[in-house]
Amino acid sequence: MARTLTIGLLLPDLTNPVNDLVAHGVQERAAELGYGVIIANHSDIGGDRTISQMLTQGHVDGVIAFVHSINDAFMEDLSRNSNGRILPMNGKIKGIDSSVSLDDPKAAEMCVEHLVDLGHRKIVGIFASMSNDSPKRRVVGFKKACARYNIQPNIVFTQGYSSHDGYLATLEAITKYSPTAIFPSSNSYALGTYRALYEKKFRIPEDVSVITLHNSALTEYLSPPLTSVRLPAEEMGKVSAEKLIDMLNGKKIKHLIVDGKPSLVLRGSTAQIKN
Amino acid sequence: MARTLTIGLLLPDLTNPVNDLVAHGVQERAAELGYGVIIANHSDIGGDRTISQMLTQGHVDGVIAFVHSINDAFMEDLSRNSNGRILPMNGKIKGIDSSVSLDDPKAAEMCVEHLVDLGHRKIVGIFASMSNDSPKRRVVGFKKACARYNIQPNIVFTQGYSSHDGYLATLEAITKYSPTAIFPSSNSYALGTYRALYEKKFRIPEDVSVITLHNSALTEYLSPPLTSVRLPAEEMGKVSAEKLIDMLNGKKIKHLIVDGKPSLVLRGSTAQIKN
Repeated sequence: MARTLTIGLLLPDLTNPVNDLVAHGVQERAAELGYGVIIANHSDIGGDRTISQMLTQGHVDGVIAFVHSINDAFMEDLSRNSNGRILPMNGKIKGIDSSVSLDDPKAAEMCVEHLVDLGHRKIVGIFASMSNDSPKRRVVGFKKACARYNIQPNIVFTQGYSSHDGYLATLEAITKYSPTAIFPSSNSYALGTYRALYEKKFRIPEDVSVITLHNSALTEYLSPPLTSVRLPAEEMGKVSAEKLIDMLNGKKIKHLIVDGKPSLVLRGSTAQIKN
Repeated sequence: MARTLTIGLLLPDLTNPVNDLVAHGVQERAAELGYGVIIANHSDIGGDRTISQMLTQGHVDGVIAFVHSINDAFMEDLSRNSNGRILPMNGKIKGIDSSVSLDDPKAAEMCVEHLVDLGHRKIVGIFASMSNDSPKRRVVGFKKACARYNIQPNIVFTQGYSSHDGYLATLEAITKYSPTAIFPSSNSYALGTYRALYEKKFRIPEDVSVITLHNSALTEYLSPPLTSVRLPAEEMGKVSAEKLIDMLNGKKIKHLIVDGKPSLVLRGSTAQIKN
């Protein structure tokens, strides 16, 4: 099939504030290697079908698929039908031997460490339900850190990935666990966490500390600005573009974790626990 | 050229919270008409080049281009080179006779009306610099309403479309005009407005009222939730998909404003002025 020098990027939705960083990385590295990038929105209304048609009909050469919320069966089929020209990003997919991910477990551990350093022991983590790889790995890191500090690994699982899910989970967390600190594991959840705490008249960080994963406009511009553990999202995009193009040129790619340690960025949503 | 039954959607970036609504509308209507949708991110790193190549090489049949921040020259060229298979959305482009837009002027007027109803007369509007059609039309509505109520049409113009631009503009607005109400004309700006007011220790809405255009997760989940004038963004996506496909089938499309009046959604960021 003739090369188009175009690759596809399959995103679960366009609202995740981290998407833009990831897409920027993919585009930048792809452009350096002579490739253009188009994006498909995986949704209930056909973004997945579109990308699989484009791939099988030769309108794109290969696809990077951000796996959060994209189900395994769809991806497995797509990979089989496209002769493996699919690279899962941000997690593994059953039956596909390649992927590019971030060190989510380490980053989740660091969130707990920071809270424990500030004296918190009643901490609740908010995570997507366990069917996907990336939330699973975040839960592993969260539990590992809780075990190390001998604190209860309180978790509220959500049904989806929206701010509304984060809001509902935070209300549940408050009722069930009376936490002094909350760890919503995505920027979208964190927006809902702020809202729920505001509604219940808890001040951030005076009454409840909040920390999340990843940087975005939200972490910078929420009030108070949101402390987070930064992960190299843009770098994950760059590495994914490079590795997919390697695959298209016949190289085997294994499961990779992107270099670049997570780093704590203090912004003002966490504080020493009150006595 | 063979039909691919795929259309492209050119977005300025992936961070604008309204994108997902627009994209959803485009995808839904396109799917009903038998078309798939791919998205390109117009950016400094080649999203524009990619979409124009896909169009001229026949990998997509036509393109809907969200014009905010996309420059006229690029769009004019693209339209000429693609035999007019381009539909500008959210504003007009010089030299192209078709477009699908929202009633931005009316919506901007309604924001001022609501603030005046609450007793505000020191109002500042925050708008993107005037080179694009959609911000221009918002400014027209803002000025028209200010003239009607005989109040000063204070405006701060921004250089870009980010929350940081909204943040800087709000700091300038506070210093220059000591406003009792601020109208950041996009959700992204409003996030920066909240941050600047927080930093300067103004409470929303007790000290300063805030209102914006469009609904999104931000308007729902900011603290306090952000009062806005809702515009039919998803409907604009649907109409655009339908009209582009009409164009591909040989119909002439004029400049259209999407039906569906803007509506005020009260959420808690505006209040009666204090005496």
